Formats: sequence, structure tokens, C-alpha cells
Amino acid sequence: MKIIEANIDDMSGEFLGFLMEELFKHNALDVWYTPVYMKKNRPGVTVSVLCYPQEQEKLEEILLKETTTLGVRSYSAYRKKLERQLVKVNTPYGDIRVKMAYGEGIFKASPEYEDCRLAATIHGVPLREVYDVTMREFSKMNIRPKVTKTNV
Amino acid sequence: MKIIEANIDDMSGEFLGFLMEELFKHNALDVWYTPVYMKKNRPGVTVSVLCYPQEQEKLEEILLKETTTLGVRSYSAYRKKLERQLVKVNTPYGDIRVKMAYGEGIFKASPEYEDCRLAATIHGVPLREVYDVTMREFSKMNIRPKVTKTNV
Amino acid sequence: MKIIEANIDDMSGEFLGFLMEELFKHNALDVWYTPVYMKKNRPGVTVSVLCYPQEQEKLEEILLKETTTLGVRSYSAYRKKLERQLVKVNTPYGDIRVKMAYGEGIFKASPEYEDCRLAATIHGVPLREVYDVTMREFSKMNIRPKVTKTNV
Amino acid sequence: MKIIEANIDDMSGEFLGFLMEELFKHNALDVWYTPVYMKKNRPGVTVSVLCYPQEQEKLEEILLKETTTLGVRSYSAYRKKLERQLVKVNTPYGDIRVKMAYGEGIFKASPEYEDCRLAATIHGVPLREVYDVTMREFSKMNIRPKVTKTNV
Amino acid sequence: MKIIEANIDDMSGEFLGFLMEELFKHNALDVWYTPVYMKKNRPGVTVSVLCYPQEQEKLEEILLKETTTLGVRSYSAYRKKLERQLVKVNTPYGDIRVKMAYGEGIFKASPEYEDCRLAATIHGVPLREVYDVTMREFSKMNIRPKVTKTNV
Amino acid sequence: MKIIEANIDDMSGEFLGFLMEELFKHNALDVWYTPVYMKKNRPGVTVSVLCYPQEQEKLEEILLKETTTLGVRSYSAYRKKLERQLVKVNTPYGDIRVKMAYGEGIFKASPEYEDCRLAATIHGVPLREVYDVTMREFSKMNIRPKVTKTNV
Repeated sequence: MKIIEANIDDMSGEFLGFLMEELFKHNALDVWYTPVYMKKNRPGVTVSVLCYPQEQEKLEEILLKETTTLGVRSYSAYRKKLERQLVKVNTPYGDIRVKMAYGEGIFKASPEYEDCRLAATIHGVPLREVYDVTMREFSKMNIRPKVTKTNV
Repeated sequence: MKIIEANIDDMSGEFLGFLMEELFKHNALDVWYTPVYMKKNRPGVTVSVLCYPQEQEKLEEILLKETTTLGVRSYSAYRKKLERQLVKVNTPYGDIRVKMAYGEGIFKASPEYEDCRLAATIHGVPLREVYDVTMREFSKMNIRPKVTKTNV
Repeated sequence: MKIIEANIDDMSGEFLGFLMEELFKHNALDVWYTPVYMKKNRPGVTVSVLCYPQEQEKLEEILLKETTTLGVRSYSAYRKKLERQLVKVNTPYGDIRVKMAYGEGIFKASPEYEDCRLAATIHGVPLREVYDVTMREFSKMNIRPKVTKTNV
Repeated sequence: MKIIEANIDDMSGEFLGFLMEELFKHNALDVWYTPVYMKKNRPGVTVSVLCYPQEQEKLEEILLKETTTLGVRSYSAYRKKLERQLVKVNTPYGDIRVKMAYGEGIFKASPEYEDCRLAATIHGVPLREVYDVTMREFSKMNIRPKVTKTNV
Repeated sequence: MKIIEANIDDMSGEFLGFLMEELFKHNALDVWYTPVYMKKNRPGVTVSVLCYPQEQEKLEEILLKETTTLGVRSYSAYRKKLERQLVKVNTPYGDIRVKMAYGEGIFKASPEYEDCRLAATIHGVPLREVYDVTMREFSKMNIRPKVTKTNV
Repeated sequence: MKIIEANIDDMSGEFLGFLMEELFKHNALDVWYTPVYMKKNRPGVTVSVLCYPQEQEKLEEILLKETTTLGVRSYSAYRKKLERQLVKVNTPYGDIRVKMAYGEGIFKASPEYEDCRLAATIHGVPLREVYDVTMREFSKMNIRPKVTKTNV
């Protein structure tokens, strides 16, 4: 994996909100901003982008084009990840997908945010209520992912 | 005391560095920036200014003039403070002023930053070294402030 | 104006993203999150909501319902604001609205973010380019708002 | 309620960790630190303390004694809170208390952190596992607090 | 040295407080959390762990087990460090250990936090007082570490 | 490029302000501070320094000498940057330099902060006014940098 970073102290929050959308549109795996203290009493932001090596060039170009920065830096990171599998769970608020993650003797599960968000909005209930009911129903199903092989 | 605040998400760090100087020039007692998360994924900053009531109008005007904000908010705070007194301390790095603070059964002292900074730069020693030597010399002087009355 | 606040250390970022949408939907004037250090080494967030007094009760109810907090605090603030007026500006990227703010001897203007964002996306140009062209065109128009009266 | 605040830029993190303990020991209801940008490129911290009016004087004294600050500011806030009630839940990891909060048409519940932490440590299971099992068992009990009256 | 990192936006501060304890228990050299801005207006946290290569696998497992993350990233860093040596200093508040660090022409010293914390609590004096007295006594001892060789 | 980092939780903001000056004086390309949560409820700061490999040793020495840290870590990063060229622009507030950046099909320009700051202070106008006028004048000049070759 590649991590691309740039420090920005001469660009407003509005532009940074837009930039995040652009980066995700072009296959960034993750994008995040860290508040930092820069020279001359300037509140700044470090923009970080995680991506596959084949996307690096395009994403660096977006950073140089959409921001005021004159340079970006990058370095390599190794990534260890769990396998994922989705399962549909029937709840009083409709079907909600649950994401199961497993590997290395670990198993964990959590509801898909966008499904819960939609259900909470439609039914006018707290988001937490949708999460909790979904996990209770998922728990009753006693499902485990059909493990094939742990990829690392 | 008055506290004036404004949230800024459409202005760059460069301008905020400049703004801080302007606010201090016009008698702000303190100015600080807090990194905040604003709508639409925008990293923003809350600008806070502490001042006497008679300076409030001028400082709000600077905030409205030098920033992009369309409004500022303010509220009152009560301030409890210690008495201060300066004493000159003779050190191997020259005279350094020490600020004594006292009242409410409390006594504490610390060297003036700008004096130490100058001495460290001139003598090419770590800033910490100047602080430590100054406090050791101050400690030997066994000084206490001539208390008159605790103002609150 | 009222400011409502709550510290949250037992709720995830996902829920906070959702909460912000809910609060804006119910007439919050502004919502922002501040990262804070809480007891037992917990990274937390202070949720702040700015609103008119008549919306306070409803917004506090949302905070209590959608978050894990057991209590919210509130205080009053005075708000000084500039007058606003919108003007449409014709640019190579289509019509973009410019927001003029004025009062107290101040005049400033900036393009509407959502108009620029749309134009940048449609024409595939950097957001900055749309802003700059808009402000150049606006500057040529030599417009000033039809001042009626400064409300404070 | 009272909120006491002080900005600190000349004191290290070690001392702030200690200070938090001291403030909680003397009946602070909540204590939190906010990272802020202060003058002369100094990363600082705003110390905030929430307390009952009768504890204010003692807590301000601790702030003045244990920190380098020369003054503290305070203001009043109004607090709206839910009723709380504890119930013991029997789980495979032992008894865990669940805190129920209710009032204003709201009902929510969450396990006591310290109980879960202890159980997770003793049984060598993830903290999340203890929380989830506890909430599932609590959910089966179908308990509601014996409401008496909503205090505000 | 290895640095392991993961971004978390779907886990509460409570769990992160617990996680830090677990990571230190399993030989992390350092653990720290950075507040970050993540997609969909989510306040998140980057968890960072510094460790020796032989502890990496175990610590990554804990991160995957105790957090909601589906993947962790890691990279290598080179570490340059000073030599350390402890010396016991006799003070009016009991024996306090002072940590001396040296190498590369540098010598510095600071009191052990836990010793000072205990002494301040037992004697009911400010933590700062214990630090200052300890450093004054240490300074009188005129000690230098018995240098053997600077390791890097 | 090299990035040097150290976590600091036992040093005050005053010293960090001084440290930043020292690091820039010794050829750091960039220096920034990130607020982090460290063990034992300590607000800390990660100090980051970007530099050329030939400056690394000197800068690490400054970090070890001027801070309390017992060790620094470093890693390599690759840096992609745009070409820069300065052009003088005649404005009603005097000559202001504009920095043009180009390469990879990108062209962007922004006024030099220090020139604008000086002009704003001398003429008593908002910094924003100086920026805007400068960019309008620059835009009329219709200048493009004399491209030689993109260095990476």
C-alpha cells in the first residue's frame, strides 16, 4: 500500500471538504485529515491518502491540482487485513446487511452504516436502536462465514 | 471579562496566523484557535478571544473585517486571578526576570520566556538550561513578593 | 442565541456523523465537534449546537435521544452579525451566486460553495478555478449591496 | 452548573495527567482537555471543569495551585439531565451492571464500563464481547426503570 | 522499530481507553491516539503503536481483536536513542529517582513521574514542588552518568 | 526526503514554540506539531520534521538536545514537487511577489504571504484585500512561467 501526505496551511476547510470527495471518487482506499500546528501560528491540516500503488500517480495529481501544496510526499506501508463477508439480516426495520470479518482466529460483525442510516431515517427511530436490533437478530441466526483461506 | 468566538471553515491558516497578530495588537488578553469538525467534512477552527468589555466592540470589528465569518458570538465570564510581581535574577547567562504569582495561599514563580529565549540564543545553550539555572538562582535568593492585597 | 453542549466518550464516529445531519435537519444554525481528552485515556468529542432559543428544547431532545450522553448543558450567547445579500454572477462555468456581507463599515463577498462545487464537477476543473473566475467577474460588476439598515 | 476554564501553554502533559486525577478527587463532575493553538507557535491545552457551584472555589484553588496559570475564568451553564437507574444483569462473564437512563420519552441503557473491563480482563475476552453479551441478556430481561419523576 | 497504525471511526472512546492498556501490557513501547477527520463527517482516531519487530504480530492481533478495524498498516522506522541511567536523590519528600539521559554530547535529567506523583499525594504538596526540589537536590549532587558507550 | 518524529508529553508549549524556530534555523524544510493522546491521560504532541538526508543528523541532535525525549524515530519518504517561479506584480499597495507553481499539466499561483502581510500592515487594509487585488492584477498580466523541465 502507499500512503501519500501533504501539509496544507493556505487553503480553507471548504476546499478540503471538496477534495475528500474527489479523492474517494478516484479510488482512494481511505482519506483523512489531521489537525496540525504549522509555522507562523497557522492551524493547518495534514491530508493523508491510503491507496494501491497503481492509483498513486493519479491521486498525487489530484492533490497537486486541487490543493495549494507545492509538493506531496509518499511512503510504503504493509497492510494486514481480515476477510470480509456480507449477510442479510431480517429486522423489524427491514433487511440490514451485516459485515462479518474473520481470520487469525478472530471473528467480528457489525451492521452496514448506510443500511442502518436509511432505516433509521425512514422509521424515525434512533440509529442506535437499528444497530442494536440488527445485532440481536444476527446473533440469533448463529451464522459464521464460510472460511476459505486467510489472506494477508 | 468577555469571550468572543467565531467558527471559521472557509479561510486558510495563513490568514489565521495574521489575524492572531492583529487581535493581540488591539488589546486582546488572549487569543486561541481550537480545531473543530464542521459540516460537509470541513476541518475548521474556532477563534476565541478573551478581552475586557471596553475592547469587545473593536475586537469584534476586526474579526468581522479580517475573517470570512458573517457573525460572531460572545458571552461573559468571571475571572479570578493571582497577583503578579517581577524580580530580576542574576544568572551566568545575564539578568533574567522571574514572574512571581501569589494570592489565596498560593505562591509560584517562573522565568520570563522572552528573557530566556534571548539568553539561550545569545549563549547557544538549550532553553531548558537557562530556565533551570534561573530557577536555581531565584531559589537561593529566598524572595517572596511584598504582598499588598489579593485582588480577585 | 443558545449554545448546547455535551461531551461524548462512549459513542463512535459513525453515529456522530449521523447526529450532525439530524441536528441540521431540525434547524440548528451550526453544529461542530471538538476533539477532547477525557478521563481514563479516552479520546472524546464535545458536540456543540448553536440555535435560536425556540429550537433549544427540540435539539436537546435529539441530543439525548441520539447520543449516549446522560445530560446536556446550555448557555446564552449574544450574536452580532452582518447583513447578507446574494447576487448572480455570469461566468464561463455558468451562473454562480455570490454572497455579499456588509455592515459596520465592512463589505466582503464570496461565492456560494454549492454552486462552485457543482460547476467544478460538471466542467471538470479545479474548485479553485471556479472561485477565482467568479470573483474576477464579480469584481468587474462593481456591485454593492442596497444597504437598508445594519441589524445587530 | 459552573464551568471553569484555563488555557495552559507552559506546562507539560505529565502534570496535566496528574491534575485530572486531583480535580476528580475533589468532586469535579467532569474534566476534559482541548488541544488549542496559542500565541508564539505554542501547542496548548484548555482545561475545562464542570462542577456544582458549591465546589467551584475549591476546584479553582486546585487549578491555581497545580498549574502554571495566573488566572481562571468561569461561567454558568444550565444542565438538563436524564434519570439514571442501575440493574444487575447475569452473564456468562459474571454479573454486570447496566445503567438505564430515561425521561422526556427517552429510554436507553448501557453496561457499566468498569464491570465490563474487569470481566474482559479476568476471562481474557475482547471488551466488545462482554458488552454485546450483556446487552443481549439485558434485552431478554425486558426491564424498564420504575419511573418516579423526570428531574431537570 | 515497527510502527503499526489503524484508523478507527466506528468505536467509542471507552474502548480506546481499554485498548491502550492492553497494548502496553503486551510490550508496546509507545501507544498514542491522534484525532482525525474521516469521511461522512466522522470524528475518528488514528491508533499508533511503536514496537520491536518481534512484538509486531502479537500487537497487530490485539488491534484486530479489540477494535472494529478490518485492517492495520505498518512500516519500519529507524530509532536513535540516548543512554539512560537512574540515580536516587534524597529530598524532604523522600527518595525520588532521577533519570539521566546522555550521549552525542548531550546530558539531561528529569525526575521519575511516578515517584513524584506518589510523594505529592502523600505529602499533599503540588507536583511541581516535588519536581523542583528534586532537581535542586540533584543539581547539588553534581552527578554525571558513568558513560560506557553511546549506543544508537 | 527524511521525516524525523518524536512524541513529547513532558515538555511545555513554550519550549515547543522555541524548538520550531531552532529547527527551521537549521534547514528543516518543514516542521509541524500534531496533538496526540498519550498514556496516563497526558495531552502530548508529535513533533515532525521534514528534511534532506544531509540535514538529518544535525536536526536529530537538536531534537535530542532541546526536548525531553530520549529517542527519535525516522523514515524515508519520496517527494514529488512542482517547479516554482516568482514574478513581481504591481498593485495599489506596492509590488507584491506572486509564486507560480507548475508541472504535470498543472499551473497555479498565489501571492507571497510576507509581502501581503507587510502591505496590509502599512496600508491598514485587510490581508484579504491585498491578496485579491494582487491576484486580479496578476490575472491581467496573463503570465505563464518559462517552463524548462519538470523535476520530480
